Amino acid sequence: MSRAPRLPVAARAVVAHDRRALARLISAVEDRDPSVVPALRALYARTGHARVIGVTGPLGVGKSTLINRLIELLRRRGLTVGVVAIDPSSPFSGGSVLGDRIRIERALGDDGVFLRSMASRGHAGGVAAATREVCRLLDAFGMDIILVETVGSGQVDVEIRDVASTSIVVLVPHLGDEVQTLKAGLFEIAEVFCVNKSDLPGAETAARDLSDLAALGTDRDGWRPTVVSVSAQAGAGLETLWAAVEAHETYLDGDGRRARGERRRLAQEVVGLVRERVGRELGRSVDRDRDLGALLDRVAARAIDPYSAADRLYRELRRSG
Amino acid sequence: MSRAPRLPVAARAVVAHDRRALARLISAVEDRDPSVVPALRALYARTGHARVIGVTGPLGVGKSTLINRLIELLRRRGLTVGVVAIDPSSPFSGGSVLGDRIRIERALGDDGVFLRSMASRGHAGGVAAATREVCRLLDAFGMDIILVETVGSGQVDVEIRDVASTSIVVLVPHLGDEVQTLKAGLFEIAEVFCVNKSDLPGAETAARDLSDLAALGTDRDGWRPTVVSVSAQAGAGLETLWAAVEAHETYLDGDGRRARGERRRLAQEVVGLVRERVGRELGRSVDRDRDLGALLDRVAARAIDPYSAADRLYRELRRSG
Repeated sequence: MSRAPRLPVAARAVVAHDRRALARLISAVEDRDPSVVPALRALYARTGHARVIGVTGPLGVGKSTLINRLIELLRRRGLTVGVVAIDPSSPFSGGSVLGDRIRIERALGDDGVFLRSMASRGHAGGVAAATREVCRLLDAFGMDIILVETVGSGQVDVEIRDVASTSIVVLVPHLGDEVQTLKAGLFEIAEVFCVNKSDLPGAETAARDLSDLAALGTDRDGWRPTVVSVSAQAGAGLETLWAAVEAHETYLDGDGRRARGERRRLAQEVVGLVRERVGRELGRSVDRDRDLGALLDRVAARAIDPYSAADRLYRELRRSG
Repeated sequence: MSRAPRLPVAARAVVAHDRRALARLISAVEDRDPSVVPALRALYARTGHARVIGVTGPLGVGKSTLINRLIELLRRRGLTVGVVAIDPSSPFSGGSVLGDRIRIERALGDDGVFLRSMASRGHAGGVAAATREVCRLLDAFGMDIILVETVGSGQVDVEIRDVASTSIVVLVPHLGDEVQTLKAGLFEIAEVFCVNKSDLPGAETAARDLSDLAALGTDRDGWRPTVVSVSAQAGAGLETLWAAVEAHETYLDGDGRRARGERRRLAQEVVGLVRERVGRELGRSVDRDRDLGALLDRVAARAIDPYSAADRLYRELRRSG
């Protein structure tokens, strides 16, 4: 149907496993450069192979070390791995993390791994869209597993669950009050909890507290979160952690769960694309359309409120088609 | 025109300076409860008095202490002050900051101050909209100055410049590389830079480095950022900081700059409201509309890509009015 009879050049290069072409496309996605869209459209039909796994947690819990260990484990099993790391966008935190990553990648010198740091510039909606598209590119490139690293709780910046089929939340011992605040949203956050630095005092208690909480319920798919203790530094517990991820992925394959989840994510994506387009086109009209300008003048003069102005604009949008 | 002949009960209570009614409305805004919209519509005509000032910066630079000092200063001058603090939404950082704030408020025991912590739940777009609405409520409540505290660089979570007319970025000495990464976006970030902890070594150098950068250009209004050194802890430099804010506010009053800025923010807001409405209505249709369901099935089957599906949906949206 809309499957392109011939792939655009950039898309062909990705399918041909050209790393530099991939890197260029990812940069274009990150810059929200519209010239990348034909390649994204064309490559979509070649996606769906990769498994996208979220790795999220606060700063300082050792996510990067953990991801390095997971890369080693997955490569030993002959799987190719893409990593997308989303930094909190900030002129203050800038490029240093990217530097680390490039070092890691060079040290690996491994064609079966592709690491990429992305700034989380601009609004969260844009970041989620860009992350989703970068994952698709890595998928079309032939990666088996894509690890998406985000800072925070999984609720901020990128809604990791809008992108990943399994999410790991990484924590460290001495959670204290945090476990309490976790309580409410526990089943919305992750399928796998990873207590890292399991050699620190308090690690067993932390894992037990989390397990007790996890025993209280399930997510909407009926999945009860798994809790795994790991020492990424010492390389302990990684096999168990990955087994927990695989268990959830296998669970998704049952009873149409994976298909339902993917359809839910696609619905969000398509609705988001329409919403963004409406915003973009209206934003352009603001500068050109005299009626719209007059409407905004009346809002500024407090003669009409922004909600009523939006109602009118929405009705006009639907009438003008 | 759309000015309500009679205010809804909740709106009347806000105008009558009922603190509990205000707190309830703010909670409703935070929850994105649609029942609050009539009050927001009605109160809009009573806004436009308050000045909204952004206070943003990384964690640990002493923003809360600084804001306390600013409250003291403004109250001495007989001005009423609202504070909206937007926490990074996270089950990990949870309610502790809120607790601090409540303590501060009680300690003040002052009817001319209203403090409110807001979780930055969900997508950034929603947070910006909620922040704008809370500022309007505080404005209608009669606050003269509204301080909006955000964590980060001012680019993440809330685009503070979409809400505030003047933004202060708070930094601490020993910026090092950070000043370099600031360079690019300097004039997009703030009108006033505040180097806090001016008693620490390196403070003078940091302020000088920033001033050197600030000397290089102006923002789109022709404003050259001011750099002020402060020790919030010791209570030094606050008068100078506020004078810098006032200088920018006075500058805005010249040559139609304030009106242009407000119109720009209103255009963003109205476009955002239409965009959100499109998203909400399409989101609902996904569950009900059989054609839309079939379209998504074809996306899931990779028979059509998400961009083409969004194009079709957009055309149908404009045709169906």
